[in-house]
Amino acid sequence: MADYNELTPTEPDALAAATAAAMWARDQTAQALGMRIEDIGAGRAKLSMTVRSDMVNGHHMCHGGMIFTLADTAFAYACNSYNLNTVAAAAQIDFLAPAQEGEVLVAEATERATAGRSGVYDVTVHTRDGRLVALFRGKSARISGEVIAGLKEA
Amino acid sequence: MADYNELTPTEPDALAAATAAAMWARDQTAQALGMRIEDIGAGRAKLSMTVRSDMVNGHHMCHGGMIFTLADTAFAYACNSYNLNTVAAAAQIDFLAPAQEGEVLVAEATERATAGRSGVYDVTVHTRDGRLVALFRGKSARISGEVIAGLKEA
Amino acid sequence: MADYNELTPTEPDALAAATAAAMWARDQTAQALGMRIEDIGAGRAKLSMTVRSDMVNGHHMCHGGMIFTLADTAFAYACNSYNLNTVAAAAQIDFLAPAQEGEVLVAEATERATAGRSGVYDVTVHTRDGRLVALFRGKSARISGEVIAGLKEA
Amino acid sequence: MADYNELTPTEPDALAAATAAAMWARDQTAQALGMRIEDIGAGRAKLSMTVRSDMVNGHHMCHGGMIFTLADTAFAYACNSYNLNTVAAAAQIDFLAPAQEGEVLVAEATERATAGRSGVYDVTVHTRDGRLVALFRGKSARISGEVIAGLKEA
Repeated sequence: MADYNELTPTEPDALAAATAAAMWARDQTAQALGMRIEDIGAGRAKLSMTVRSDMVNGHHMCHGGMIFTLADTAFAYACNSYNLNTVAAAAQIDFLAPAQEGEVLVAEATERATAGRSGVYDVTVHTRDGRLVALFRGKSARISGEVIAGLKEA
Repeated sequence: MADYNELTPTEPDALAAATAAAMWARDQTAQALGMRIEDIGAGRAKLSMTVRSDMVNGHHMCHGGMIFTLADTAFAYACNSYNLNTVAAAAQIDFLAPAQEGEVLVAEATERATAGRSGVYDVTVHTRDGRLVALFRGKSARISGEVIAGLKEA
Repeated sequence: MADYNELTPTEPDALAAATAAAMWARDQTAQALGMRIEDIGAGRAKLSMTVRSDMVNGHHMCHGGMIFTLADTAFAYACNSYNLNTVAAAAQIDFLAPAQEGEVLVAEATERATAGRSGVYDVTVHTRDGRLVALFRGKSARISGEVIAGLKEA
Repeated sequence: MADYNELTPTEPDALAAATAAAMWARDQTAQALGMRIEDIGAGRAKLSMTVRSDMVNGHHMCHGGMIFTLADTAFAYACNSYNLNTVAAAAQIDFLAPAQEGEVLVAEATERATAGRSGVYDVTVHTRDGRLVALFRGKSARISGEVIAGLKEA
């Protein structure tokens, strides 16, 4: 992960990077699963994760929950990129191809729409070499508070 | 988890238990996340998981991906309970209330419909004390092979 | 449809019936498609519709949009049954079996959960003789206003 | 609708047009609702529909079922565009803004992925003047037969 603390939160993409860095510091799940933030910007995020031996299921394939968790995390960084606390209200995933232990999965989240406190984000999950693994769509809901509290006033 | 190896796979629920035991042995994800199979039967499964410190997200709540993974795992044990290899084709989840570190989550999966090689399963995720956390619906697809290979002929 | 105007809106189910009658009077879609309200209560509704010749698609089967519209309408009557204006935020449907022209479809909506202004409702669509056609899940969002304005004060 | 019968089904887009024309002739629902095919091609379709007075619901807005039906129809023309009979297995819709009587809705369907007999299609529904009304995602399943039977051998 880039050192987001070096960035100045004056522009949308820089604010997204600063917000991601703040979230990352307390995101125990993303850290425990070995995720990496590869790119971040206003309304978008790209994360990767290597399928480890403790991420396979009873069919010897990457557990669907692990694929979902990567996609959901990319969604989280994208929808919180404005520094306004936002949570997932719902999500839907289509599993298109299995992934195997050792493969690197990449999830790219993009904002499709916002309306009031809600947003819709699409996430594509593919292997590093381009095989499409899953399509995810998440519905976000903004709640009170900021990811980096007090930044607005800073 | 009960010792499913003691059961004789001659009845639907016993077959479900034997299948669950076989899947469990290779389900590295469920084991790594500390899940427990609390109940298993033909077309149904009940699993639990304690929200650990490495399962929280950047908002200090249980990561939605971990809630999904528990639900998805209950779904997997329910839809594989006939000993026919079955995978998730799609899933949808509504997040209704946050869960906190230390809470025990319980996911109960039940079969709603089957049609050809497809099935629809509903999973309810609640805390041990009954607070509803999420509703999950999964679409299953049967693929070739058996969870316990050769059992039919045994 | 029963004559809901005869009911006194003092109890939950009677309020649901009165609300349904008020919605029905302006629900041009439900009327144009020949739907019937078969049962109504607090958080639940049962509607039916005969598949007409103008409801088939290019494959000579009942159009999925018509099946969805019936389910969505049952959902609408169930989630508005408290006389608080409520709209669909999202919906998901699994099509399990085709329906043919001339068959009567029955949609039964039940409330699964409510949290703040949101609710989750499940709708089952089957033929009159019991064949399961579709499973629908809708997410509701309460907006301002009442279906029967001023009833609270009456 | 353009006169698709003038086209020669030798190229993918022309095959899509010929298939659409054949489906349209028996698609009683699309005709009854006054839909128009504005554009068609391999894996994509664009349809429009004016919100009529018989398409409003009990809240005086365009019925969600009508918005879904337009999106579902665009999805159907897109996923059948290869002249292989294909039906909807599931669909999910997020309603983002209401539509009013008299407005023209436009649904654009595009193919996101195909895997075996399954496909995922995204449909955007907006008003003619560009307001986003809904996002739809459909899962298709190819069944036996062709839309235009015998075309392969022609």
